[in-house]
Amino acid sequence: MLDVDLVKALANDKRLLILEWLRDPERHFPPQRDGDLVRDGVCSLFIAQKLGVSQPTCGEHLKVLAQAGLLRGKKIKQWVFYQRDEDRISAAKELLSGEW
Amino acid sequence: MLDVDLVKALANDKRLLILEWLRDPERHFPPQRDGDLVRDGVCSLFIAQKLGVSQPTCGEHLKVLAQAGLLRGKKIKQWVFYQRDEDRISAAKELLSGEW
Repeated sequence: MLDVDLVKALANDKRLLILEWLRDPERHFPPQRDGDLVRDGVCSLFIAQKLGVSQPTCGEHLKVLAQAGLLRGKKIKQWVFYQRDEDRISAAKELLSGEW
Repeated sequence: MLDVDLVKALANDKRLLILEWLRDPERHFPPQRDGDLVRDGVCSLFIAQKLGVSQPTCGEHLKVLAQAGLLRGKKIKQWVFYQRDEDRISAAKELLSGEW
């Protein structure tokens, strides 16, 4: 059977948008003063802003994605920067296309 | 981006169980008086009973799965029998393992 927590992590428009944007962060976000968009990830503040939601709401979405293993967070100064975990995402795709 | 309605249809333990049972209905359900388990599908009454939920609750889950195209329903007398739509399920798997 499918991993329901993985599926639940994906079952949300905003979380799918975040995953989509982080696939090509330079296309979707302006350069950051701290942290390189590709090497370090995107600061959660900018993700919240682009998503048009409060920081706590965005933080909740990022947490769900990180707990499902789809994103990795990296702390730089007082901020957290997020990027996709492509290995885990590939593993998730394999699971989703397997037997269910 | 992924089809969020498809993912939402899968984002539930009970719905994943229904899909699992209907993969091999003869293993999971006793023979029915009306409707062959494999040819016609499984009567929603038996699915509700095995799931341990009321008929309306089960009906809601079946409706979500059918609307996502993962199940097909067939009316026999006053009952509805459900089976997997394997073509649509294969297409869904392809989508889920594609770009997101």
